[in-house]
Amino acid sequence: MADSEALPSLAGDPVAVEALLRAVFGVVVDEAIQKGTSVSQKVCEWKEPEELKQLLDLELRSQGESQEQILERCRAVIRYSVKTGHPRFFNQLFSGLDPHALAGRIITESLNTSQYTYEIAPVFVLMEEEVLRKLRALVGWSSGDGIFCPGGSISNMYAVNLARYQRYPDCKQRGLRTLPPLALFTSKECHYSIQKGAAFLGLGTDSVRVVKADERGKMVPEDLERQIGMAEAEGAVPFLVSATSGTTVLGAFDPLEAIADVCQRHGLWLHVDAAWGGSVLLSQTHRHLLDGIQRADSVAWNPHKLLAAGLQCSALLLQDTSNLLKRCHGSQASYLFQQDKFYDVALDTGDKVVQCGRRVDCLKLWLMWKAQGDQGLERRIDQAFVLARYLVEEMKKREGFELVMEPEFVNVCFWFVPPSLRGKQESPDYHERLSKVAPVLKERMVKEGSMMIGYQPHGTRGNFFRVVVANSALTCADMDFLLNELERLGQDL
Amino acid sequence: MADSEALPSLAGDPVAVEALLRAVFGVVVDEAIQKGTSVSQKVCEWKEPEELKQLLDLELRSQGESQEQILERCRAVIRYSVKTGHPRFFNQLFSGLDPHALAGRIITESLNTSQYTYEIAPVFVLMEEEVLRKLRALVGWSSGDGIFCPGGSISNMYAVNLARYQRYPDCKQRGLRTLPPLALFTSKECHYSIQKGAAFLGLGTDSVRVVKADERGKMVPEDLERQIGMAEAEGAVPFLVSATSGTTVLGAFDPLEAIADVCQRHGLWLHVDAAWGGSVLLSQTHRHLLDGIQRADSVAWNPHKLLAAGLQCSALLLQDTSNLLKRCHGSQASYLFQQDKFYDVALDTGDKVVQCGRRVDCLKLWLMWKAQGDQGLERRIDQAFVLARYLVEEMKKREGFELVMEPEFVNVCFWFVPPSLRGKQESPDYHERLSKVAPVLKERMVKEGSMMIGYQPHGTRGNFFRVVVANSALTCADMDFLLNELERLGQDL
Repeated sequence: MADSEALPSLAGDPVAVEALLRAVFGVVVDEAIQKGTSVSQKVCEWKEPEELKQLLDLELRSQGESQEQILERCRAVIRYSVKTGHPRFFNQLFSGLDPHALAGRIITESLNTSQYTYEIAPVFVLMEEEVLRKLRALVGWSSGDGIFCPGGSISNMYAVNLARYQRYPDCKQRGLRTLPPLALFTSKECHYSIQKGAAFLGLGTDSVRVVKADERGKMVPEDLERQIGMAEAEGAVPFLVSATSGTTVLGAFDPLEAIADVCQRHGLWLHVDAAWGGSVLLSQTHRHLLDGIQRADSVAWNPHKLLAAGLQCSALLLQDTSNLLKRCHGSQASYLFQQDKFYDVALDTGDKVVQCGRRVDCLKLWLMWKAQGDQGLERRIDQAFVLARYLVEEMKKREGFELVMEPEFVNVCFWFVPPSLRGKQESPDYHERLSKVAPVLKERMVKEGSMMIGYQPHGTRGNFFRVVVANSALTCADMDFLLNELERLGQDL
Repeated sequence: MADSEALPSLAGDPVAVEALLRAVFGVVVDEAIQKGTSVSQKVCEWKEPEELKQLLDLELRSQGESQEQILERCRAVIRYSVKTGHPRFFNQLFSGLDPHALAGRIITESLNTSQYTYEIAPVFVLMEEEVLRKLRALVGWSSGDGIFCPGGSISNMYAVNLARYQRYPDCKQRGLRTLPPLALFTSKECHYSIQKGAAFLGLGTDSVRVVKADERGKMVPEDLERQIGMAEAEGAVPFLVSATSGTTVLGAFDPLEAIADVCQRHGLWLHVDAAWGGSVLLSQTHRHLLDGIQRADSVAWNPHKLLAAGLQCSALLLQDTSNLLKRCHGSQASYLFQQDKFYDVALDTGDKVVQCGRRVDCLKLWLMWKAQGDQGLERRIDQAFVLARYLVEEMKKREGFELVMEPEFVNVCFWFVPPSLRGKQESPDYHERLSKVAPVLKERMVKEGSMMIGYQPHGTRGNFFRVVVANSALTCADMDFLLNELERLGQDL
């Protein structure tokens, strides 16, 4: 009887399943992990989109394929993907491959559960609680709440939603129409997710008041005070300030103590977007950059960035102990959060979030932390600062490099000034010509596959490079390579 | 010089990295994959939270641990986790372990990139486009747009946000305060994410008008029409109807053609939450349950449920070809979406979403599809229907089982009537006593680890079981086991 047996797929054949997975894992180890982190290999193998489509043969068809074909597809996917674990991947706020975190991710995938109930995620409910407790302790809180979110943008959005709910609990039911116009404050250097979040949450981007930043990219508390007064004069109700610890481009840290003073005076929720900079709390040497963070109401911190826990790992931490998360987001679905369960239903954390199913994001961080200890992670952070400083000092010795500013974090922002533009700072078209250099060099480095560095225009400044020194496998030799390679790629410009 | 070399972690030692990962992978294959899917093993090993905390030793400490300790921790994490790939895991709308999808997930984790730009995710930008195209074709659309979201709740939220933006583009900037009160419509059987989404998006739960469902759980189009009229009479502006294809508890499919007619008459956005039922589109035999879905404006479909692609894999599909996603969600961050890149920047899909970093959710589905073909996936769906029918017919032969209703999908809802309650339907306390049976049996099955089935109260009905027949490894023998096991566990009640 056809329906009395499992389908004739691998799922019914444990030996074939094991053979397939061992073969795929072998490819992963050789191609993605070993070659993918070796400086003797390319960081990327550029293909034009149309060519890549042909190479990948993406179409999904009626007939399935053989195991050999599937393995060949795995090889192609890895081959043409960018190696973000490679030491010469300086392009984003994440880089590197931590083997323990990867081990945690592989286990997470093999267990494939959702974080919403103790019933189906007993280990991970308890583990998430412990990891969040540890992160909160580093912020300076002995109690509180929190949750892992699918990325820092959503963590930031949660903070905004919690702040407005705390002030106007009715808005959960009645919406924003019955409320006065609300205003939130962040600096012009903040991450764009604050604007996106304001739109998504129905507040509108107009509700975001943009506070001035100084020349180093730090929010100016006096302007914050002024903006609050202006908003109030216009009839808006200020409710939240989002400060940034580690801005995306310049790596600036807002002055949290002064901002917390302003928030305290005006009774505003202080959120700190420390998605990028939060990991600096692990460093006794550098954590002063976040002085005052313990005065925040909420903190967003992404260990998938500087700690390389793996995408995504974003914690929203709260000082709140009044169950605000669950009150704000909960809806008591009776099919999932039954109240007559045989265990303490406070362990079912699923109603703290606006998601239903939620991925397990704690294991990768926990396992890495167990392997490294606070000390190992602290060394990584300190090492990144040391190498960023080395890079800056080496740049100063070479004539083709102009720093945008002295960095205080591991974002190193600079222009590469090619030979034809050196000494021409007074030319009327100098800045226009300089801003065209980075895109050209970017194209060259990607097409050669030698390294990847991001660039961007910023305010009145034309395109400059931002090197992110985050990969824990980096050495001074990689910094030297980076400088030599830019000189090589740009020698004819 | 301390700073001239990589940290003395595994990251600097390729041999040690490989040894660790191979050891962890061995544990995963043995414990999570082989034992985790074997009916000779438990589906879960229950521990009280306090005992489990002790067993796991969760605390994160200053010192790191040895590789042997880390391996021991990996074993413990797997041991005490629920085996959602096990054939006796009937507890959620996902179950089973597809080896090709798992292979895709392991590759995804090893490549660790973000889906936002072609620059760092060339393979996955093109692959996501192709997978979405395929899903849209199954809906019945030859063009359109779409995106993978972190779960169906967020996919549903996107649909609501897009619908309001399409009607009131100003609201992105100016927020909801300047708009008339908005109304959206969904049935009382809808997923709770519609309510959560309305609150989060600032509309408030009051904006959700709850439409009647018939006794089978299907939305009543006449009541939808009536509710729209009532909302308009109250001065609200209807803008969206969310129909459900495969409700969470009963597995009901709303009558999409009739609902589409109503939407067309009133000019409303039709969203279909097919998170659970969407995969039925692959079955020529059963796809009639979704007749009319091609008339929707948006569809949410989670291949991580019935197709077992792995958490999370949730597609939001749109009929729109006007770049609505990007217009609604975009903010043109200049550090990420530079317009002077050397390739077609339309390939940078990151501005379609409210996230910044976004996980790669397409590879696991693509690889599984390549291996199975449409045909293999169709067989799985058809097999699930066949087995659900088998279970129902077997239940009818036994006196201890009372169906809530004849299922039309793979949710089989029923009461187990223990010996002491049989023939007592007329007793005044029958329903009260019956509703206490499921929680007791649930506790017993979990503590024995023999199987997991969810239960819930529902409307005026007391607790009943919902068996989800989704695991592609299931056989009739597993269905027989389920019935026998309930009888065994409940024989003394």
